[in-house]
Amino acid sequence: MAETPIRFGILGCAEIARKVSRAITLAPNATLYAVGSRSLEKAAKFAASNGFPDSAKVYGSYDAVLDDPNVDAVYIPLPTSLHLKWATLAAQKKKHILLEKPVALNVEEFDRIVEACESNGVQLMDSTMWMHNPRTAQMKKFLTDSEKFGELRSMNAIFTFAADANFLENDIRVKPDLDALGALGDAGWYCIRSILWANDFQLPKFAKALPGTLFNKAGVIMSCGASLHWEDGKVATLHCSFYGNLTMNVIAIGTKGTLHLEDYVIPFEEKRALFTTSTESGFTELVTGWVPLPSQHVVMTDLPQEACMVTEFSRLVNCIKKDGSAAEKKWWGYSRKTQFVLDAVKASIDKGGEAVNLS
Amino acid sequence: MAETPIRFGILGCAEIARKVSRAITLAPNATLYAVGSRSLEKAAKFAASNGFPDSAKVYGSYDAVLDDPNVDAVYIPLPTSLHLKWATLAAQKKKHILLEKPVALNVEEFDRIVEACESNGVQLMDSTMWMHNPRTAQMKKFLTDSEKFGELRSMNAIFTFAADANFLENDIRVKPDLDALGALGDAGWYCIRSILWANDFQLPKFAKALPGTLFNKAGVIMSCGASLHWEDGKVATLHCSFYGNLTMNVIAIGTKGTLHLEDYVIPFEEKRALFTTSTESGFTELVTGWVPLPSQHVVMTDLPQEACMVTEFSRLVNCIKKDGSAAEKKWWGYSRKTQFVLDAVKASIDKGGEAVNLS
Repeated sequence: MAETPIRFGILGCAEIARKVSRAITLAPNATLYAVGSRSLEKAAKFAASNGFPDSAKVYGSYDAVLDDPNVDAVYIPLPTSLHLKWATLAAQKKKHILLEKPVALNVEEFDRIVEACESNGVQLMDSTMWMHNPRTAQMKKFLTDSEKFGELRSMNAIFTFAADANFLENDIRVKPDLDALGALGDAGWYCIRSILWANDFQLPKFAKALPGTLFNKAGVIMSCGASLHWEDGKVATLHCSFYGNLTMNVIAIGTKGTLHLEDYVIPFEEKRALFTTSTESGFTELVTGWVPLPSQHVVMTDLPQEACMVTEFSRLVNCIKKDGSAAEKKWWGYSRKTQFVLDAVKASIDKGGEAVNLS
Repeated sequence: MAETPIRFGILGCAEIARKVSRAITLAPNATLYAVGSRSLEKAAKFAASNGFPDSAKVYGSYDAVLDDPNVDAVYIPLPTSLHLKWATLAAQKKKHILLEKPVALNVEEFDRIVEACESNGVQLMDSTMWMHNPRTAQMKKFLTDSEKFGELRSMNAIFTFAADANFLENDIRVKPDLDALGALGDAGWYCIRSILWANDFQLPKFAKALPGTLFNKAGVIMSCGASLHWEDGKVATLHCSFYGNLTMNVIAIGTKGTLHLEDYVIPFEEKRALFTTSTESGFTELVTGWVPLPSQHVVMTDLPQEACMVTEFSRLVNCIKKDGSAAEKKWWGYSRKTQFVLDAVKASIDKGGEAVNLS
């Protein structure tokens, strides 16, 4: 039996909400139902240009979306500083929540969001799209294969993009009162998530910022790096920046194999994603070439990763609505750990590179 | 007019000397002339199985190679702890020197080797083969293109390989009295060289070891990482290890472009080497894919990179022999800077991760 499509309300008309609106349209079990903005005109314009059905509700406030009894779930792409207020309000109004990253300004704030969601029985998931790409499951299969990959030893994750002058002046991600975590919260979130993901979400023992963090005049992080260290000697480094050409590189090195990809956050192409693996790589007899050569894997997907995300979120919401299932805690668990490590990196930056324990 | 082939003598029968012997055979301006080992039998066996001509000299000592007046140049693949002694002796005997890396146990030792070479007018070059691959010049062209790459902002270089039980027990690279620098001297050398190369050999301001260096029981480095920091905010990280699957990854991120390759030390294939570049990478309108996509470049070479190295070395030696030219200082300058940074990383490891200045 087909699922009843989950009716989404969107809080605000952020640029990223356009991509997620399309994803909601593409997801077989979700539908665009409402959008709210502080400006009714902006909301109407957003609905008209982003494939909302004629029957969709257009509201001049976020509250109005939350007060609409027909809204099942909200997507919250508001600046991070507004997450606590609007996510807890949404939970209180029994709306399931798809929340943009970083999920909060710090893990204490996020815990209050989680508490509101738990006590109101609503699903909470962050909007880390790549987690839902079918490629991710394929890569995980490789990483957990003790014959092909062995044990993870080291990792490097990079996400940089060259922000233009307008972004560096006006984007919410450079404003201390909006997205105070800057490049760390925006791009660094993905680096940390990928590292935790490859580590089965086992937390590192400590985090240590690298020297050389760059801030804008308002004191927001524009570029930074860190290393993460586990009890067993595993080490990961990450680098995120608004100052380097768009680069999304992840490399994970195990005792027996290596995983590598260059577009982990957003695949080069929407429906076709690649990754490279190698196992027990060695050399020709005179060390003049590699044997075996790395293998390239292609993973096709009909639904873009953000639509896969909306589909999974809506499936969980449907389980709650239809069967009274409990919300799936796994997803907010991932969010919390990512935020927790991100906070530790931030604390280490604030302490001039001192190691910050995570236990 | 064809050059007179440079007559090579090889000191010792190291495994790597087999690859270089073949390279000398392949180089149009070099020839295998002599090999010396502490065991005459080993030397004879080495000559017989590595393409030495019947006329080649086989000696039961390194001294005998240096005393042969027909030897123009020596290749020294001896353990690092023996470089100072044999390289200075070779220079005194007016032999041009192709020296395995790391060039010395520390930069002070290397300076004594340089002094011996300079005062005897002989060419000195280290055996960092990838520097001579035609791919390297192509990549450099990209890195220096202000429109396509812009200014270097950050970099990551990795070289790991999974040493087997025999290596970890017996190889010279795990012995404190032979190659005391372990994985840092062996694999880390390449990481540091690639970073300096991309930075036009501009030295970083300071180096800082990451936590988590692993040592064997004898106290030799088996795995380590570091970050390097330049005056202008550029940052590079490196990781080298004997404990991870074979991985050779370099990524250099500029303000406008990105350079990436996965086999910088030894190309996957001998005669065909790849690298990837991207310039002003951005996204499709809804941020669902990349525009433009990265470009893959293929560089063909008739001569393998190690034969290109021997050819360039022999060309320089011929210039000295025929025209009385001065030795080319560029090459030992690269060696010295690599060793200098390597020493700083080692010092930082010894000081528990303290920053070590390089100015």
